[in-house]
Amino acid sequence: MVFNSVGLFGRYQDSGVEETISHLQALLKKRGINVFLGDPTANEISGPRIEDSDKPLPDTIDVGIVVGGDGTMLHVARILADYGLPLIGINLGRLGFLTDIAADDVEERLDQILSGDFVTEERSMLSAKVNRNTELLADCTALNDIFLSKGATGKLIECETRIGGQMVSRTRSDGIIIATPTGSTAYALSAGGPILHPALSALIFAPICPHSLGQRPLVLDDKSEIEIRIVNLAGAPANFFVDGLLSLSLNGDETIRVKRSKKITRLVHTKSHNHYSTLSAKLGWG
Amino acid sequence: MVFNSVGLFGRYQDSGVEETISHLQALLKKRGINVFLGDPTANEISGPRIEDSDKPLPDTIDVGIVVGGDGTMLHVARILADYGLPLIGINLGRLGFLTDIAADDVEERLDQILSGDFVTEERSMLSAKVNRNTELLADCTALNDIFLSKGATGKLIECETRIGGQMVSRTRSDGIIIATPTGSTAYALSAGGPILHPALSALIFAPICPHSLGQRPLVLDDKSEIEIRIVNLAGAPANFFVDGLLSLSLNGDETIRVKRSKKITRLVHTKSHNHYSTLSAKLGWG
Amino acid sequence: MVFNSVGLFGRYQDSGVEETISHLQALLKKRGINVFLGDPTANEISGPRIEDSDKPLPDTIDVGIVVGGDGTMLHVARILADYGLPLIGINLGRLGFLTDIAADDVEERLDQILSGDFVTEERSMLSAKVNRNTELLADCTALNDIFLSKGATGKLIECETRIGGQMVSRTRSDGIIIATPTGSTAYALSAGGPILHPALSALIFAPICPHSLGQRPLVLDDKSEIEIRIVNLAGAPANFFVDGLLSLSLNGDETIRVKRSKKITRLVHTKSHNHYSTLSAKLGWG
Amino acid sequence: MVFNSVGLFGRYQDSGVEETISHLQALLKKRGINVFLGDPTANEISGPRIEDSDKPLPDTIDVGIVVGGDGTMLHVARILADYGLPLIGINLGRLGFLTDIAADDVEERLDQILSGDFVTEERSMLSAKVNRNTELLADCTALNDIFLSKGATGKLIECETRIGGQMVSRTRSDGIIIATPTGSTAYALSAGGPILHPALSALIFAPICPHSLGQRPLVLDDKSEIEIRIVNLAGAPANFFVDGLLSLSLNGDETIRVKRSKKITRLVHTKSHNHYSTLSAKLGWG
Repeated sequence: MVFNSVGLFGRYQDSGVEETISHLQALLKKRGINVFLGDPTANEISGPRIEDSDKPLPDTIDVGIVVGGDGTMLHVARILADYGLPLIGINLGRLGFLTDIAADDVEERLDQILSGDFVTEERSMLSAKVNRNTELLADCTALNDIFLSKGATGKLIECETRIGGQMVSRTRSDGIIIATPTGSTAYALSAGGPILHPALSALIFAPICPHSLGQRPLVLDDKSEIEIRIVNLAGAPANFFVDGLLSLSLNGDETIRVKRSKKITRLVHTKSHNHYSTLSAKLGWG
Repeated sequence: MVFNSVGLFGRYQDSGVEETISHLQALLKKRGINVFLGDPTANEISGPRIEDSDKPLPDTIDVGIVVGGDGTMLHVARILADYGLPLIGINLGRLGFLTDIAADDVEERLDQILSGDFVTEERSMLSAKVNRNTELLADCTALNDIFLSKGATGKLIECETRIGGQMVSRTRSDGIIIATPTGSTAYALSAGGPILHPALSALIFAPICPHSLGQRPLVLDDKSEIEIRIVNLAGAPANFFVDGLLSLSLNGDETIRVKRSKKITRLVHTKSHNHYSTLSAKLGWG
Repeated sequence: MVFNSVGLFGRYQDSGVEETISHLQALLKKRGINVFLGDPTANEISGPRIEDSDKPLPDTIDVGIVVGGDGTMLHVARILADYGLPLIGINLGRLGFLTDIAADDVEERLDQILSGDFVTEERSMLSAKVNRNTELLADCTALNDIFLSKGATGKLIECETRIGGQMVSRTRSDGIIIATPTGSTAYALSAGGPILHPALSALIFAPICPHSLGQRPLVLDDKSEIEIRIVNLAGAPANFFVDGLLSLSLNGDETIRVKRSKKITRLVHTKSHNHYSTLSAKLGWG
Repeated sequence: MVFNSVGLFGRYQDSGVEETISHLQALLKKRGINVFLGDPTANEISGPRIEDSDKPLPDTIDVGIVVGGDGTMLHVARILADYGLPLIGINLGRLGFLTDIAADDVEERLDQILSGDFVTEERSMLSAKVNRNTELLADCTALNDIFLSKGATGKLIECETRIGGQMVSRTRSDGIIIATPTGSTAYALSAGGPILHPALSALIFAPICPHSLGQRPLVLDDKSEIEIRIVNLAGAPANFFVDGLLSLSLNGDETIRVKRSKKITRLVHTKSHNHYSTLSAKLGWG
């Protein structure tokens, strides 16, 4: 894999992003790389933009570079996953689970990567479909997780979960999270879930504040299709989220089907990258 | 304490309530007790009703008897607490934390209580005031808990909590629960809180799915006033609940102040009642 | 698979075992099956015994039937795994995670199984090797878990864990559990671990009461070799356990290496068996 | 309270302790304060020693200053509690829950305290008595906690707990921790307990890795006497610990009785001390 053309992504409103983007743009151009600015990146920065290219994305760029937090990374990962394009994450001072290159080290790290001194890592994604009767309301892809959570009610919602038609559980809780290994360090962790190795063919089923103390997080094979129905909304429409973004309001007639997506996110790391060092730093294992 | 006049409370829609209420009404009358039907009790049952009495509540009834679940009990407790009137809880087959007399045993148990063979137990309650600038939006009393939770957003809300003006914590979470010892076995338990002995002068501060794994539930003195402000709503109005009932929508300008209420709930138990047996049965300590 | 010759196993001291064993012995003989009594089964019961057979185990029996609890099941599973022999578990009144046939149903269920109406399920096992310098102190197989735990000290022990030579974590805790999916509902669950689907190629790394609240259970690929060293014993020899049985006292010079075993446990279930129903019944998901 | 005579305590083996002790000794003498070296402090440091004083402790020193970690602090606290003497904690670079003055700030902070600019805080302690039949095996005082834990067995021990003669629970677990509010941030926290405000008249009853997921930590009134008996040792003597120090081996015939001690630990803080800042820094609330 050789990177001749780069897509640069960053959210303008995050402080420091503009400066880092401009710096990267100059740095990459100096090395003879074509640079295209990506979708959430401000118009204030001038230069060729991905949306202005008349060629398909994979003919425009070879790799995406994201400057910012894990939120921006999730957004761009969902775009690039359609084409299997790899992704590099740059953080602005605060290490992210996905953005593992510090802005301060960016020049050195990018030079390593551009000279071929890198590894790529495949991260599984979720495919989630929401149906109301025969109507498909949503068909989405997530890198971290999908979750459904109760609406403006102080009571618990009740869900039925099946795998391959087989009843798994009836759960009274604030909601349910289905997370990939990548998402295991995000919301699912706050809900009491375990940390999954990124390469595992598995996903987490974690009820949010379940009424029954025995309903602990499940780790399931990611090839099984999980089917969730809300059987009691507790008086308010529930909400369905994809990577933390509100996707749908649910009235209880819906069926949510989740399984591993055929798409993957391809992360590019320098060879010095160590998954456990990131965990240790982020979670204070000291 | 002698019980000459009883208020009977039950939610009509719950199956079995009507029958048990009618049975109790007859049973009590036979023993020469005045019986008044209370507010959530169906009009289908005939007899004198509390709302028709021209006397204040404490001159109308000496004690309340609730038939149903802990939800109805919470509702009636908040009414009776204004007058310090005692309360008896009857469950319909499924033991409640508050409704400890089984409908099957009701005749025997009530005879014990009416003959003076009972104990009363005082349960602390919470007083919660919500202000927007100088305007008092809500001034309420809770037996179990008050909580605030994020609205239709997939992101965490951020709250600042102070006690006596002193900063306690800045919390990023799905919300915050403040629970009495009585409420420690309700929502706070699902959020990872401990079980407090009912007589303790303490309350629980439990963040819901906090982002930081170190933000464990706090147990605080109930004489301290806790002050909570939402400093980041994450893009959607949050909600404020009293004993699980939606009370207010919050736009982030509010200050929530919680402390022990001057009101108390007085529970009447037969002498054979054992708090730990209830815990053991409800939580499967077996 | 046809079962012509059965090994019967049960611990005599458990009440009811003798009677059930004798009952099964008669029942199986009546159906023309050869019955051999296995190792932990009392001499009080007469009949041919496995240890008296002059043929290897797989030429003596086709299947093992265990009467008792999950402890006896673990013991027999480790014996049969050497030969890949399948296993049927009968419980005496209290459903086990592994002993899923109730003694009351045994006649009906066995008839189903003997008539070929069954499924087999493969459960992964762990291989654990303990070395002191170049000396191999133990080489064992576990169906549930292996764990090391601190000795008679009130302080935490400190362990270093590596996977493929890569440092994973330095943990201060009461000990460390490595569990298979089968063991995920045993000790690892009490230590805060998740519930793994039995077919998953994964294992749990769960620190016991870790000092750092961020050291949550990890779910790892079971093909990776995990290497654990105790770097601080906190003043007392630690202990090493295999399926809950004390195997070794550790003085801190040892290296423990754990990965998936080549052996497997083959469980025989009637077709009506449902993994999630067992979970629901055992964990009170109600 | 005026401090004219100080006891200096520190464990020699901890690096940096000797230097800080000598520095403090000089600093205090210069301010006209009498300085006595206390029991765990090395003989390498010369000067009057508490054990050489022919007067009782409270006539020798007015206050204790501990240099080191929370372990040394616990040790000295148990000594000073016999006389109600106050205590100042100095840490060597790593903030402790009890040692809240950094060695770098020691001169400034001690000058504040010596000039009267301080607050004292009372911390409750536990009294624990262990009896075998009529024989009193141990009568001890703890500032953090007492706990009993299983010996060299891979099985769970079973305990019965009573309060005021009333059965609370039968617990199958690795052991049981009883902690003061001060101890709530120590071992009990690792076992899933809540954080108690230091001034609360309460203690924590926390089972260690309990088999039943419903057996969550209890918070109890500290005036009640808790009585624990081990009813099943699981084949190995259990151990009894006081503030993390091994106190007794238990064979199962013992009764352990715990309640609030009449002794207290009096901590001296500068007025700028903030309990929640310490929690936030130690637990990464950031």
